[in-house]
Formats: sequence, C-alpha cells, structure tokens
Amino acid sequence: MTSKEEVVQSAASIATSVAPTTSARVRLRPIDARGVVIRDGLLADRQRVNREVTLLRGAEELERAGTLDNLRIAAGRMSGERRGMVFSDSDVYKWLEALAWERGREPSAELERLARETTELVAAAQEPDGYLNSFCQVVDPAWRWTHLEQGHELYCAGHLIQAGIAAERATGDASLLAVAGRFADLIDEVFRNGSVKSTDGHPEIEVALVELFRLTGAQRYLQLADTLTTRRGHGLFANGRFDLDYYQDAEPVRDARSIVGHAVRALYLAAGVTDLYAETGDDALLGSMLRQWDDLTSTKSYLTGGVGSRHHGEAIGDPYELPPDRAYCETCASIANIMWNWRMLLVTGESRFADLLERTLYNGFLSGHSLDGESFFYMNPLQSRNGERRHRWNPVACCPPNIMRLLASLHHYLATVSDTGIQLHQYATSTIRTIGPDSNPLELAVETGYPWSGAIAIEVVSAGEAEWTLSLRVPAWARVATLDGEPVAPGGYAALTRRWQAGDRVVLEIDVSPRLTVPSPRIDAVRGCIALERGPIVYCVEQQDVAGGADLADVAVDPNVGPVESGPIEELGGLPGVALAGVVRELDGWRQSEYLDVRAVPAVGPAAPTRLRAVPYFAWANRGEGGMRVWIPAAD
Amino acid sequence: MTSKEEVVQSAASIATSVAPTTSARVRLRPIDARGVVIRDGLLADRQRVNREVTLLRGAEELERAGTLDNLRIAAGRMSGERRGMVFSDSDVYKWLEALAWERGREPSAELERLARETTELVAAAQEPDGYLNSFCQVVDPAWRWTHLEQGHELYCAGHLIQAGIAAERATGDASLLAVAGRFADLIDEVFRNGSVKSTDGHPEIEVALVELFRLTGAQRYLQLADTLTTRRGHGLFANGRFDLDYYQDAEPVRDARSIVGHAVRALYLAAGVTDLYAETGDDALLGSMLRQWDDLTSTKSYLTGGVGSRHHGEAIGDPYELPPDRAYCETCASIANIMWNWRMLLVTGESRFADLLERTLYNGFLSGHSLDGESFFYMNPLQSRNGERRHRWNPVACCPPNIMRLLASLHHYLATVSDTGIQLHQYATSTIRTIGPDSNPLELAVETGYPWSGAIAIEVVSAGEAEWTLSLRVPAWARVATLDGEPVAPGGYAALTRRWQAGDRVVLEIDVSPRLTVPSPRIDAVRGCIALERGPIVYCVEQQDVAGGADLADVAVDPNVGPVESGPIEELGGLPGVALAGVVRELDGWRQSEYLDVRAVPAVGPAAPTRLRAVPYFAWANRGEGGMRVWIPAAD
Repeated sequence: MTSKEEVVQSAASIATSVAPTTSARVRLRPIDARGVVIRDGLLADRQRVNREVTLLRGAEELERAGTLDNLRIAAGRMSGERRGMVFSDSDVYKWLEALAWERGREPSAELERLARETTELVAAAQEPDGYLNSFCQVVDPAWRWTHLEQGHELYCAGHLIQAGIAAERATGDASLLAVAGRFADLIDEVFRNGSVKSTDGHPEIEVALVELFRLTGAQRYLQLADTLTTRRGHGLFANGRFDLDYYQDAEPVRDARSIVGHAVRALYLAAGVTDLYAETGDDALLGSMLRQWDDLTSTKSYLTGGVGSRHHGEAIGDPYELPPDRAYCETCASIANIMWNWRMLLVTGESRFADLLERTLYNGFLSGHSLDGESFFYMNPLQSRNGERRHRWNPVACCPPNIMRLLASLHHYLATVSDTGIQLHQYATSTIRTIGPDSNPLELAVETGYPWSGAIAIEVVSAGEAEWTLSLRVPAWARVATLDGEPVAPGGYAALTRRWQAGDRVVLEIDVSPRLTVPSPRIDAVRGCIALERGPIVYCVEQQDVAGGADLADVAVDPNVGPVESGPIEELGGLPGVALAGVVRELDGWRQSEYLDVRAVPAVGPAAPTRLRAVPYFAWANRGEGGMRVWIPAAD
Repeated sequence: MTSKEEVVQSAASIATSVAPTTSARVRLRPIDARGVVIRDGLLADRQRVNREVTLLRGAEELERAGTLDNLRIAAGRMSGERRGMVFSDSDVYKWLEALAWERGREPSAELERLARETTELVAAAQEPDGYLNSFCQVVDPAWRWTHLEQGHELYCAGHLIQAGIAAERATGDASLLAVAGRFADLIDEVFRNGSVKSTDGHPEIEVALVELFRLTGAQRYLQLADTLTTRRGHGLFANGRFDLDYYQDAEPVRDARSIVGHAVRALYLAAGVTDLYAETGDDALLGSMLRQWDDLTSTKSYLTGGVGSRHHGEAIGDPYELPPDRAYCETCASIANIMWNWRMLLVTGESRFADLLERTLYNGFLSGHSLDGESFFYMNPLQSRNGERRHRWNPVACCPPNIMRLLASLHHYLATVSDTGIQLHQYATSTIRTIGPDSNPLELAVETGYPWSGAIAIEVVSAGEAEWTLSLRVPAWARVATLDGEPVAPGGYAALTRRWQAGDRVVLEIDVSPRLTVPSPRIDAVRGCIALERGPIVYCVEQQDVAGGADLADVAVDPNVGPVESGPIEELGGLPGVALAGVVRELDGWRQSEYLDVRAVPAVGPAAPTRLRAVPYFAWANRGEGGMRVWIPAAD
C-alpha cells in the first residue's frame, strides 16, 4: 500500500509542471527540472529572449491593458471600471507561472519582485470564502457560477492553480498555492458536493486539479477533476452560443470517437483526461485519448503541428479540412497540444508522442513568438497572400503569457526516466542530472547543434553503478540515422544498455538535410503542392525571398530537383536558409479569368526558372509583411 | 426639359422592381412586368413552387418565429416579449414584397388576404411620427438611431420601402407605400437635415430610396440615398465589432478599388450605388462599380456566382481565396449579386452582366431553395464532406423571404427595351409584351427547353410598323451558337434588325452540351480539380451517385474523357444527369498519414474505373445528406 504521505513526498520532490504520483500509470517519469539546464542553441536562445525581453513586456502589457488593475479593483485598492476580457485574470496567472519556472531556472531579483508583488495582489483580491475572479467581483457579484458556458470561471481558477503549483515547486514559495488551494476547496464544495451540477465551458481546471492532487495528495481534487470531466457530453451547454462539439459536450469523454470542437478546449481537456487516466487507471479514458489522437494525427493536424482549421468557433474542422490560408492554428492550441503529447508520452512511452511534441514545438508553437521576443501571433496560418503583422499584445491575450510559461519550462520536456534508464526525447545542448535506477546520481552532458545539425553527442558525466539503458528518440521523419555509426531505425528509440562509465560518449546522427514533403491526396486544400522540411523544422517561402521580384502566387517548385542548403540568413540571426528550384509560371492568359472551358485554357507561357530561398516557418513575418507559403505548387 | 410630373408618370407606369426615370443614364430599360409571363420550364416551375408552397410556409414560419407577433406587440395588440433577431421585421417586408409581385403575376384571394392583413398590421405598428421598428419600440425606445452599426434600422426601412413600392406597382395598392413613405420622410429629416450624421451599418436602404425617388419623383429621396452613400468610407464604424471593410466604411465609395467586406452588405450597396449613378450621372460612382465588378469577377467569385469566402464576417475573402468547402456564398449574397448585375446591365447594356446574372441565378441562388419549396440553404458551399441538411427556416431568416421575392419577380429579368429594339437576356418559354420604338405594341412568344436544351425559338406575335432590332444574348460560356443556322459569337448579343412581321420566327441554338471547366492556377483551394457545366448549369457529384459505393473523397475524374448525358434523374423530378468517367484511387497507403516524405510516398494502387453521375448543383441535398463536390480532382 502506498500511503498518502508517500505520494505527497514523492510528487512534491519533482519540480516540473507534470509530476505523476509514484502509483501513477506511467511508463516514463519526468526529471526534476532543477536538474536540467539547456545551455546553448535554439531553445536556449528562446528561453533567454523570453527571460530578458518577453516576461518584462508581459509586465508592461498587463499594466497597460488594465489586467492588473482589475485585481487591484477587486482587492479594493483602487476604483474604476474593469477592463478587458472576462477571462483576463488568467493572463496574470499564466505570466506568474512563467515567472516561477524562470526563477527556478535562475534567480532574478527583478522577476522575484514582480512575482512577489503580484502574488500579494492576487491574495489581496481573494474573497474571504476563497472566491477569486475579478469580473464577478467587480462587475457583477450575481454572476458567480451562473455563466459557466462562456464565463471561464473555472478556467481562470485552473490557471491560478497551475501558477501556484509552479511557484511552490520551482521556488518553494507556497503563498500563491495557498490562494489557489482555498479557491480549489471552494470549487470542490460547490461543484462536487454542492448545488452546481455543471462544469466549465472551457476545460483547463482538470489538468490543474490532477496536479494539485499530485502535489498535496488530497484525493478530493482528483475526484473533482473526474466529476467535472464526467459531466461533459450530456448537453450541459445545449443552449450555448456554439454547438455542443465546441464545448466537448456532445459525447461523454469516455465514449468520444473523434476530437472535435474548439481546438484549445479540446486539447486542454485531453491533457487533463490523460492526467486523470494516469492517476486513476481508468482505461476508458486512455482508450478515448488514443482514439482522439489517431483522429487528430491522421486527418486533422497541420504540418506545423498546429490544430484548428476554422476561424468560426476556433474549431478543429472536419477530417481533411486543412486550409493553409484560413488555418486558425492558435498558438494556445499548439501549447495545449504539447501539454497533451507530453502526458501521452509519459503514459505510453511511445516515441510518436514525442515526435508530435517536437513538430509542434518547433513550428506551430515557436511561430507565435517573434525572434526579438517583442511580438506575437495568435493565429499561425500556413499561407498568407498579403502577409501578416505580429501583434505587440492582443485584446484576447491568452497566447502571449501562455508562450512565456512554456518557454520558461522548455527544459521540462527534454528527458524522462524509468525503472530501467533514461530517455532523451528532445535534443539540445544541455546538462541532465537525475537519480538513476540504482538510486545513484546520473548526469549526462549533451552537445549538439540540433535542430540545425543532426549530430548529437551524449557524454555520461556520472554513471552510477548499475547497468541502465540510454534511450534516444530517432524521429520518424528521419531518412537515416546512426548511433555510433551503426544504422538505427527512425520512429522509435535507439537503446543502449550498459554498465556505463563516467566519460562514456555516444553519438547519434540524424539526417536533417532538407527534404520535400507531400500531402495526402485527401487533403483538398493543398492538392498538387509540396512543402519543405529540414530536420524537425518546417520551412516556408516569403515573398521577399523570391528571386527577381516575381509574385509568390505565380511560383511553382520543381519537385524533381532536391532542395539544397543556402547558408545562414543574416536578417534572421543566421538561421539556415534552403534553396529551392522554382519556376515562375506565366499566367497572363488567366489574368481576367477565374474559370475557363477546358478547351479554352490558355497556354501557360514558358516557365522561367527562379530561385526561392526558404526560411524556417517559425521565423516568418520577422522582416516586415509579405506573402508566405508553406505549401507551394509543384511544377508539372 | 423633363418635368417632375413626367418623371413620375413614366416611372410609375413600369411595374417592375427597377424602373429608371426617363432621364436616367441607362442604355436598356426594363419591361413592364405585367407584360411578361414565364409559361413553362425550370423558371416557371420555381415560380409555381414558390407560389403554391414557399410563400405559405413563409406565413407559417413568420408566425411560429414570433416575427409577426413582434409587430403586434409594437402595435399594442398583444403583450409579451419580442423574439428573434434585431432585424426580423425585414423578413416580413421581404415576404410582403414577394406577395406583391406574386399577386401581380396572378391574383389570389389567399395571398391578397395575407398581404392585406399584414399590411394593416405594419401600419398599426407605425409610430405617429412615422418611426417603425419593433425592436426599438418593444425592447428599448432609447435605442432609436443609436445603434446604427449593427442595428439594421435603416436596412429594415429599406425593405419596407421596397415592399411598399412592389405593392403599389404590382397591385396598385398604395397603403404599404404610404407607411414606407412616412418612415422615409422621418429618416430624411433625421439623417439628411437633422442631427444624425451617420449611415446604416448594413446597406440596403440606398436601393430602396432611389426607387422611391423613381416612383414619387421626390428628389429628397435621391439626395438622401446619395448622402447615406457618401458618408461611408470615413470610419463611421471604427469602433464596431468588425473591421471597416466589413461595413464598406474603409474607403469612400467613389474611390474604392476593390470589393471587400461582408458580402451581402457590399453587393446591396453596389446595387444602390449603380441606381444612384443611373439617376445622377455621377461618373465616379460608375467607375467604382466597374472596378469593383472586375475585382469580383477576376478574383473573388465562385463558379456558382456565389460570393463570400469566409464564415468569419460572412466576408468576401482576399483575391483567389475561394475554398469550396468553407465557401459561405450566402443565398442573400447571390440575390444581391443578381440585383447588382441587373442594374449594371441596364446601365451599360453589356452582356457580361447578364451572363453573371444567369450564372448566379441558376446556381448560387437556386441552390438555396429545395426542389419541393419547403426548405432552404443559408450557405451554399461547393463541397461538403459529410453532407448538409436544408433548414425549414433559420434563426437568421433573411434568406427564405429573400428567395421568395426574387422567385416572384423572376420574370422582371428576362428582357429589356431600348430606343432601337428589344433585348432578350434570359431564356424561358414566355410571352413578352411591351411597347416598341414606334410606340406600337410588340409581342414575342419564346419557346424553349432552356436551360436543358439550347434551342430557343422566338416568334414575333405583334411586330409594330417600324424597323427594330431583336438582340439575343449569346452566353460567353457557349462553345458554339447559331442564329437561324448562321454562327454567332458567344459573349455578346446576336442582333437582327428588320421590319418585322407578325409570325416571323427566329431560332437561336446555343450548345449546352456538358463541358469540363478548369480553375485559374491562382485559385489554391481547387488546384488540380475540374468542374462540370452544362449550359448555364453548374453540376456536382453527390456521394450517392458514385457507382459501387466508393468514397467520394477517393474519386478522381479522367479529364480526357468527355462527359456524356445520362438521361433524366427520376428522384430529382427528371433533371438531366451527366455521366463522368471516374476512377477510384486506392489510397490505403495514406490511411494513417497526412504528410509523407516525397521519397516515401506510397504507390497509389491501380485506379479502378468508376462511373459518376453528376446532378445540377442547385438540386443537391434534396435526397438526404451525403458528401458533395463541384470541384473534383483530375486523375493524373
């Protein structure tokens, strides 16, 4: 028997966003983030920009938008009208979560001051009974628990709980957790034992409640997560503004055959349900998750890992409905997709989840954050005819602080441990310290230029005494890969089981040379097109990189000529460019016509060869506005 | 000098929805609708179904939805809460307009009773000062003139005016016109001379006011239309829910280079602006209309004549943004497009406007009305993966009564007269009586199976005494056409100038055999696809017409095999089917993958030949729900 106390002790010792209990049904376990440092490379750079620029911009923007003032008004410290969206408190909580993970990475007097002052403000705004929501408190006290469909009341609570947990785990400061716990207890009283037999229109609290259970050992939080999850799917929101799919309320979660509705809602819920499975062992939940994941990845995912095909309802579309231009692909959906895939990886140990996490991280997620860290994308389409301008902030500001909390916790996602060894899932120049299967300290030093280079050198710095297995993910997209010169199969883990010695060194080589990618013939919107990938990075062509000033709309790519490296792109901080053999199609005969009789189709003039320079998709719209395409027509 | 009285007399004598004054800048003039009868064929059938089924369903639904009750509450005849959309009064007015034109076609005691009772109700709801809007009157009197952005206050007034004009012209009953005139005078006082220096967020009243000027000769209505039009484009709605393009408020109308924003708003405005040009001769207005039309038809129109590429904002998209699956193509936008093109035809005399009117009428418009007249489509996409169910009515019920008023007035759009003769634009078995250039009665009898047959026989029944010209539109889509056996050029009018004799007969033969149509390479969303047209009719393939039960998603068409007639389709009332040579692509290798390395693309198995039966697009979703495609991939 695992006592409650043991569970608590075990969970609390893992300073990471997801910390399954010792009895959880997981094949892999996260590594305490205090033992992981990303030292160099793309991910380190993104963490640095987040720390030095974006987190501080967040503080400014939360002031400018009135988001912090809303809490001051709720706390009775100032008067005035509440501003912003009904769910804007959650922007503060996500930013506080980011501050916590960032302080855990490296102390900072300024970040500590911001966190301390804001935490104190949040605590001051809390009602004596534990309630905390500035919209309800400032605008309409009668609103409490009465607008669950669109009110985001529990959604905000979920982000508060996650922020409180992060602060406690990363810095040991439990003051925000205390606020969150009081609110969670009130919600438990009202929703599980009390009169409100509903749930929130926007899932989020589920994942937070399971984690609160993990941290505290208090079963009531796990039960509340189960209750709120199980209530979905029975038409609670039948009179809502959107259809039941939107709220994941058309089918009980355990019965769901497909993933539907509002993308962020669906993916946050999936993350919470996966956690709930891990702690309860309820197989119906895992079955649903596997079905939904298959549905997502066989018919409803973008090449970038982005999810959400429709602007209307910010929704996952029908199968194979994947327009590149009107792709919604909200940055928050990519973050939620990363959250879900990390949990599926822990539960199953299967590399396909780490593969999708990687795809989403480097493409659909990073694209939401400008290279200079100053601006953001809410939507991440794969084609833009006229270009898009990144936003300094958004009226709906969910994405910027969500980006911040993920960047501040990127190092949580590199590696896991199991009873038999250590697994590396994402590659970065990093130090990874943990406790090995024999309870001795293990330390690995990873050196790599990944994702730009495919050479990954892993040195065992501390080896312990027992035999253990080093498992290295070989991405399914790799054409070839070798481990210490021996071929290893893409789409799984290359495993080395040894009695390791300090100083042992292995080298994984993954072919990251540029390759062309073809869409399924069932994806109507990109028929006849090809895309370019290089390692895990999806590339795109921007208008300014079409040689000779031809219109990007008139360009095709010769699929028979392989793409070649074209060297670092100075304007993009030296990111590697790739040259594509293009042709400019002479479409003058079509200038006035949209549709023509097949017998009257004008001769397309001789296609003039041109050179296209492709850039990493995540770096688009960093050099002004102009057309962009991931999918480019293949020349006949 | 044309006296005011002459203008009034001349205009009032033309019983048609558009009746330019004698001094209007038009090349062609409508024919008094009392002289035109569509006797047989598709259009006659749609008019009959509208009369016998749809208009009566309208009465039921306007009761069921509370739309008539809203007016009863406003009139103080009942109590209760107002129901439905803010603009629901306009549903009543459009339906009253339909009743008027229908009674003009053929008297009916039942339709007369409905019109009389409803007109009396509308009059009773009017305030003493002329104001009439059930939302304002019942819900919030302070709302008057204060919510122009989304309130549809003048929009509703516009439909009231159009209905009043229709009743007066078609039946001589001026009682609804009196109500409309009082409201128009109040609006003129408030908006042109008074304190409200704005316009309506939804154009519609412009076209109504120009027509009210035409009917009454009162210049103030023309001036008000000009004022409301000219105020647009200066950011009146800068704080609106949507961007300025949505409201056609980003650029002054006279300067507009492209057609943008909410499709129905843009096209209603265009119709009104064209009327305004016709009566004022303001060349800047015509220049803008021609630019917008070119923009629409070279980059923003669907093959069906539908307009509106986005669900978000029900908007015209960017150039070449024409997704078939997420096409919005609201039925009201097709109606507005028909309205606009009719006016452009009158102004210019150019056949391209009649061509687009025809395309829109037979495809994007008729698709909104079920064959049995009982149900409707609000959106008219060109692809549906899972099928769609037609609605019995809509919470936003703009389309059904709009369909009714256009069907009841279809005969307005067949022919025009000019100083030199008569022009036939749309072909139906019909009788056309008017006054010839020599002021003698003219009568034509048209016999045709159009659009199913391309043979059109025109007999001159009354010829007058002077020489005049008979002009027959030869659609631009025709591969070949002959007039009395002699080839005539598609894309214009075949003209015969003679001293005609009663009994003279000419036969126009237009090739309506099935043909394949190719999209511009710039239209990304249907790249590699072909469509089928037959005469003016766009065809589609529905899932149930794929032989052997193959999935429509896996089917391609062999573009090298011509389509052939496959005979009448019994389940669709004998509409002609067309057989396409299809192949079923074996895509099993793609079952689990959305995207693959170009080197790992699975062999697509041998394509099995199959037979596809295509049906007229307008008749889709009349045999249950199932996938549908207008654009079908072309087999390699």
